[in-house]
Amino acid sequence: MTYCVGLKIDRGLVFMSDTRTNAGIDSISTFRKMYTWEEPGERVIVLMGAGNLATTQAVVSNLNERVKSTGKRPPSIMHTPSMYQTAKLVGDTVKEVIASSAPAGESADAFAASFILGGQVKGGEPRIFLIYPEGNFIETCEDTPFFQIGETKYGKPILVRAYDPAMSFEETVKLLVLSFDSTLRSNLSVGLPLDLLFCERDTYKVTYRRRFAQDDPYYQELAEGWSKALRTAFKSLPHLKD
Amino acid sequence: MTYCVGLKIDRGLVFMSDTRTNAGIDSISTFRKMYTWEEPGERVIVLMGAGNLATTQAVVSNLNERVKSTGKRPPSIMHTPSMYQTAKLVGDTVKEVIASSAPAGESADAFAASFILGGQVKGGEPRIFLIYPEGNFIETCEDTPFFQIGETKYGKPILVRAYDPAMSFEETVKLLVLSFDSTLRSNLSVGLPLDLLFCERDTYKVTYRRRFAQDDPYYQELAEGWSKALRTAFKSLPHLKD
Repeated sequence: MTYCVGLKIDRGLVFMSDTRTNAGIDSISTFRKMYTWEEPGERVIVLMGAGNLATTQAVVSNLNERVKSTGKRPPSIMHTPSMYQTAKLVGDTVKEVIASSAPAGESADAFAASFILGGQVKGGEPRIFLIYPEGNFIETCEDTPFFQIGETKYGKPILVRAYDPAMSFEETVKLLVLSFDSTLRSNLSVGLPLDLLFCERDTYKVTYRRRFAQDDPYYQELAEGWSKALRTAFKSLPHLKD
Repeated sequence: MTYCVGLKIDRGLVFMSDTRTNAGIDSISTFRKMYTWEEPGERVIVLMGAGNLATTQAVVSNLNERVKSTGKRPPSIMHTPSMYQTAKLVGDTVKEVIASSAPAGESADAFAASFILGGQVKGGEPRIFLIYPEGNFIETCEDTPFFQIGETKYGKPILVRAYDPAMSFEETVKLLVLSFDSTLRSNLSVGLPLDLLFCERDTYKVTYRRRFAQDDPYYQELAEGWSKALRTAFKSLPHLKD
């Protein structure tokens, strides 16, 4: 499994992903699931994938090969004129990769993968898309300012309750760490380390990047502090009276 | 969908279930999912079901018919000598119902249902079992003192963090309401009203029974108080420094 979140705040875009992949409970590995393309001052693009690892890696390799190739192939992820066109490019690539993996006429379910694509291209707004295995996609809006992929349920309640578009980057990191910690505690197939990335609005670059490992002091402080704070909050609420 | 929890504390057993059933998003109804059999001072048995509603109702009807019939049929749920034998009886009934629903040789998945069975029979301990559609079952233990069925993920983090076997009944109700509230906010197919039931240890009866409807003042107080308390707890935690 996997857990990735892409979240839009007034100040920019924040992304977090775990690094655990598993083919069965007895075959667990660590892979980065967050990929970036950047031309500082011009464009920054972040892609996170959940699902079949061969599919997500093939999609990224395809996108990278188009960046390197010259002339003859369609616009690369470094040249798309907008985030919408970038989402179309990634969606088409996802569709192609999955179609070429599945035997003719058979179900492509085993090869499925979903993606969160976010970023900002000069002249446009920061945007986040959720790309389905079918290649189509949806975009965040005011009512739904974040997307999750993979094991999304355990970490959703805290996101729903504490998100505020005016949050600072530091508060957003806190929120994401808590959402991931709730997930890690309940699902073994989501695991540390976690990758964090912030793209500040209108800088068109990766403003901050960090990896939280098991022994990260801030991660530990938050995880323990949250357990205590939750228990205190729990105790503060009234008991049933009648 | 459905959400039910059966939880064991030192003082007894506590059960909570929602009442929403749906056959597609446009066909939603309210059904009680919690059934009880009781001979005060002798035995109390609680059953909650998640899955195919025809299956769960057929299981309960079967169990009830055996209580009424005389002599010729195997021991009824009012006469099993222990909770373990009660779990076997329910498990066998589940297996029979599902097998008789599925066309010969075809998958029984569409007819599947899971159950939480709890209670206490005189001479034994209070016990809680999780019964699978295959009819086999597992029991709670010190490490895993509760079972959930249905939409289990949203409401699990708070259960895991705040459960303590020494909790009072009132605290346990608070915990369950919060777990259900987190689920209700995220999954439309879990809905109010909620049924609550407490069987105090060694009383062999339903000690307390209550239904929480949408306008229940305690439910509302908790749901609102929890949102505020969570935001306060969230703000109290440290920000990322470097």
